[in-house]
Amino acid sequence: MIVSFLPANITYQVQEEDILLNIASKANIMIDGSCGGKGKCGKCKVQIISGTVPEPDFAEKSVLTEKEIEQGYRLACRLPVKGDLTVKVLQTGDNISRKTRLTWMPETLDETKHIKKYYLEIEKATLKNQASDVQRIINALPEESYSIAPSLIPKIPGILEEGGSCITAAVKDKQIISVEKGDTTDHCYGIAFDIGTTTVVGMLWDLNKGKLIEVSALTNPQSVFGADVISRIHFVGNNPDNLILMKAKIQECFNHIIQDFLNRLKLQSIHIYEAAVVGNTTMSHLFTGADPARLARSPFTPVFCMPFDLNGSEMKININPQGNIHLLPNIAGHVGSDITGMLLASDIINLEGLSLAIDVGTNGEIVLAGKNRILACSTAAGPAFEGASIYQGMRAAPGAVEGVCIKYGEVNLKVIDDKEPEGICGSGLIDAVSELLDKGIIDHTGKLTDKETALEKGIHATLAERLRTGPKGKEFVLSWRNEQEDIVLTQKDIREVQLAKGAIYGGIVIMLKETGVQINDLDRIFLAGAFGNYIKKESALRIGLLPEISTEKIISIGNAAGIGASMALLSVNEREKARIQAQKVEHIELSGHADFQTEYIKAMNFPEY
Amino acid sequence: MIVSFLPANITYQVQEEDILLNIASKANIMIDGSCGGKGKCGKCKVQIISGTVPEPDFAEKSVLTEKEIEQGYRLACRLPVKGDLTVKVLQTGDNISRKTRLTWMPETLDETKHIKKYYLEIEKATLKNQASDVQRIINALPEESYSIAPSLIPKIPGILEEGGSCITAAVKDKQIISVEKGDTTDHCYGIAFDIGTTTVVGMLWDLNKGKLIEVSALTNPQSVFGADVISRIHFVGNNPDNLILMKAKIQECFNHIIQDFLNRLKLQSIHIYEAAVVGNTTMSHLFTGADPARLARSPFTPVFCMPFDLNGSEMKININPQGNIHLLPNIAGHVGSDITGMLLASDIINLEGLSLAIDVGTNGEIVLAGKNRILACSTAAGPAFEGASIYQGMRAAPGAVEGVCIKYGEVNLKVIDDKEPEGICGSGLIDAVSELLDKGIIDHTGKLTDKETALEKGIHATLAERLRTGPKGKEFVLSWRNEQEDIVLTQKDIREVQLAKGAIYGGIVIMLKETGVQINDLDRIFLAGAFGNYIKKESALRIGLLPEISTEKIISIGNAAGIGASMALLSVNEREKARIQAQKVEHIELSGHADFQTEYIKAMNFPEY
Repeated sequence: MIVSFLPANITYQVQEEDILLNIASKANIMIDGSCGGKGKCGKCKVQIISGTVPEPDFAEKSVLTEKEIEQGYRLACRLPVKGDLTVKVLQTGDNISRKTRLTWMPETLDETKHIKKYYLEIEKATLKNQASDVQRIINALPEESYSIAPSLIPKIPGILEEGGSCITAAVKDKQIISVEKGDTTDHCYGIAFDIGTTTVVGMLWDLNKGKLIEVSALTNPQSVFGADVISRIHFVGNNPDNLILMKAKIQECFNHIIQDFLNRLKLQSIHIYEAAVVGNTTMSHLFTGADPARLARSPFTPVFCMPFDLNGSEMKININPQGNIHLLPNIAGHVGSDITGMLLASDIINLEGLSLAIDVGTNGEIVLAGKNRILACSTAAGPAFEGASIYQGMRAAPGAVEGVCIKYGEVNLKVIDDKEPEGICGSGLIDAVSELLDKGIIDHTGKLTDKETALEKGIHATLAERLRTGPKGKEFVLSWRNEQEDIVLTQKDIREVQLAKGAIYGGIVIMLKETGVQINDLDRIFLAGAFGNYIKKESALRIGLLPEISTEKIISIGNAAGIGASMALLSVNEREKARIQAQKVEHIELSGHADFQTEYIKAMNFPEY
Repeated sequence: MIVSFLPANITYQVQEEDILLNIASKANIMIDGSCGGKGKCGKCKVQIISGTVPEPDFAEKSVLTEKEIEQGYRLACRLPVKGDLTVKVLQTGDNISRKTRLTWMPETLDETKHIKKYYLEIEKATLKNQASDVQRIINALPEESYSIAPSLIPKIPGILEEGGSCITAAVKDKQIISVEKGDTTDHCYGIAFDIGTTTVVGMLWDLNKGKLIEVSALTNPQSVFGADVISRIHFVGNNPDNLILMKAKIQECFNHIIQDFLNRLKLQSIHIYEAAVVGNTTMSHLFTGADPARLARSPFTPVFCMPFDLNGSEMKININPQGNIHLLPNIAGHVGSDITGMLLASDIINLEGLSLAIDVGTNGEIVLAGKNRILACSTAAGPAFEGASIYQGMRAAPGAVEGVCIKYGEVNLKVIDDKEPEGICGSGLIDAVSELLDKGIIDHTGKLTDKETALEKGIHATLAERLRTGPKGKEFVLSWRNEQEDIVLTQKDIREVQLAKGAIYGGIVIMLKETGVQINDLDRIFLAGAFGNYIKKESALRIGLLPEISTEKIISIGNAAGIGASMALLSVNEREKARIQAQKVEHIELSGHADFQTEYIKAMNFPEY
């Protein structure tokens, strides 16, 4: 059977009957999904262009509109493929090259030059000098007592012959890890990977110069099996093979990113000698093939937290086969090595005063440092700020509403790449709620008013016009569209925002209580991640996502996890620092904390001005 | 197509037309061969019992007798298999369990206990103790700062669960290399391997007690591709795939030996944590997949000499996947790690006075130590002493004549396992030549007399009767047989002995000259290897294989290579000693030595008494 995917126009030969979502995954077609194939989120909607259109099942009927069903829309996660099929994928993701949307990265970093490359002219063997090939290579190196990676042995005679005894050796910790013909000393690369639940980012560094060369990002291909870590853990639990599948997906993803670098810059994979990897604890587990099952239930025990050095070829990552992949340490079951990366990037442990750092994602991780302590916790903020669980939510991809400004009765939208709006992403969502709060369209309990009440309250008529009741209940129209559904913010979306921001704010309160300090004592708040970069600080304060603090004290630090990974990539000292700092962190388990539930509920309301 | 092998009664399904010798190799049937499939040595003779008997080719006609051809004998190396076939393999080798024929091994050895096993009861995780599985295991170990092999990570949750938190950890260099459920502290094994060109020996040691448990040996399965290292190097050169094949053959052989241990002693492979390996330089190269091509031509450059630590699972050896395989260092292109093993076993470097050590095999390696120097050389003795190149030569397997005594006109043969004589092995060959020299039947130039001259010279008539001219020229009948060919020593066999012993003696002379000492200065001669164990010292002196020295100074040291490998297996100090000693050795290249050819030719004659 042949399945063709539009608009990418990719065809894939299917061996056996399967669900379209799985087939798409095999064909490396990204189809968004956030409920893990349960048919609940409706994100994996596709349109059948040719082939048999099956009757919609119960889940499809409850998620899709009648019109959509009529037009051949189905859910990829519910669609059995039994014959040739052509489908149009709606959210084609973005695949390679989201550089423009990536958050700030430093151009250069300090480095320990732990990979050294030497151009060598090797003496020929004679009856007077019968030293082995390996010995003659070692003799040509500066200093003494080098060893060589055993797996290089078979290749050495060929390289010496082809290179006419002129070779380049790459050395790490006095071990020769690569032998290459000719002079390749200029080519010495490393990649820092940040495995986000949603996006995997690769940062290619020149290890000779400590300079960032290129950034590439891909949607995490595990996404089709669930938007958040919990649904992926459940997916893994369904079938022992799924753990292997999830590991393979990350490997594939790394290799795609690497291939992108190789193609774009005309590099060879053998010249990539190091990688450093961060990710949340679930991602770390899936990357190493460790079963994350117990991360989904109390007491949330990880299999491991410590850092690891993994072999490139064993991990099937397309770098030099002797290349080393350094996985930074996790802190706890839901505070992963991405947060360790944030510790490095912010240097929060060594700053004067009291600092708070927040990484807002599906999990909101919060770090509080000061007074010789460092605390971390994770709150299940839910995927609202990443666009999932929001009716028309989407990731920060082209077409996403990323900013909302309501003035003089007009709604102005800022859409990524200035395209027609297709959905709303995290920063747009916060803006929208903030603006509607300001205008009194949402009250502090989160209730969306209706048109009549709005007009009574003297709200601008053009805004009141936007209040209506849609299929999902009360909603506010952000943008009218002709052919397609209007872009709206629903009452339920607002509830999701309240849950998310309540969880984070509740976590912050507990951390402050644990340390016995007040909001006013905070010297700074670091916002990490893409979200932290694009969020309007005023809006975040307005909805009560962040504690009341002057906006100058709120500092966006870019892709802190990725910067931390890059620092560890370039410097073994930073790796050691990461190991020590991760151990120093006191983990506060909110689910085991007596006050958290109270604080969480308290924080769900919006601040009253 | 089905090929059945008798007498083992093993059937093998053949996918495509191939030479019988290759098929036998795939079916793990050992068929002797010493010319590398050239149809010259005739050792791979098989009898076709059913199936098409092809016309003999040119090579078969020159090697087999007419009667043999009539009876369906063919050479396995020349026999194309095109349909079902049943063949009787004549020299079925000996396969597993040649223990009784193996040379002396010590029962116990000193050890550094570098593998430690700990039985641990692991605390359960709680909300108050959220430490990771790995951390709780590490916490249960004595002392601090352990690491863990990354490949164990995926298995840990299962083992903790199955073992009810009671587990055993195997630790090496403060790294956890194995986690096993329950208490397995009693099971801690290692294997020393000696890869001989002809025989591969495995010695299983209890690493807890430093005690030898079992020895197992197999014919080196590479033998079908050539009896000596040079023919195997040429075989590898024929086709790039052959290098991979040769490596796979050694891996298979190791795994067979391991399986034999596991079956006989009811052990599990995961409890084998270490292996130490010695072999000549060609064997070391083939084991690591390094092309030995240049070992066959001047200046005989090896790819490597240094020791290596290899990973069990990468090497596809069926020990614990984290198990380490230590390959001892080679000394030069034709002085391998087996000789390094001999250095350890004899401790020759630290002995008082002047010592000579000789390992007689296809290559005769000679070490001379004393006066603060240590010299080594290798002489191409040829395979005569291993039974190849001798008309009725065979390995020291059951049925081999291993001793010859001629008294009062009678020839008394000592045959291994007291069987009917089937051929003659190295020690028998030396005895035979020695006795015939004593009786004047061979003169000092190596010439075999004829019946008439013998009778004229007054040689016992019953001995003179044994002198005759056979199909291969002049010969002396050692044993008359009824159905089969008589067991004879031919003039050509004697020439082969002269070449072999001349090479070794010539090497000894050069070594003495290099050091400026005389034969009388020697305090001892060590004889290593199976040969050294079974050889009659008087006979070796009589034929001039060894320099004239009192027999008390000639010391057999058993399987020195295997003992050395075992010492390195049990002690990391011995590994370091091996590394340093191998570097200290001055290698004398005989082929580049001005006097060697002269001394070699001089030494070809037998001593005149």
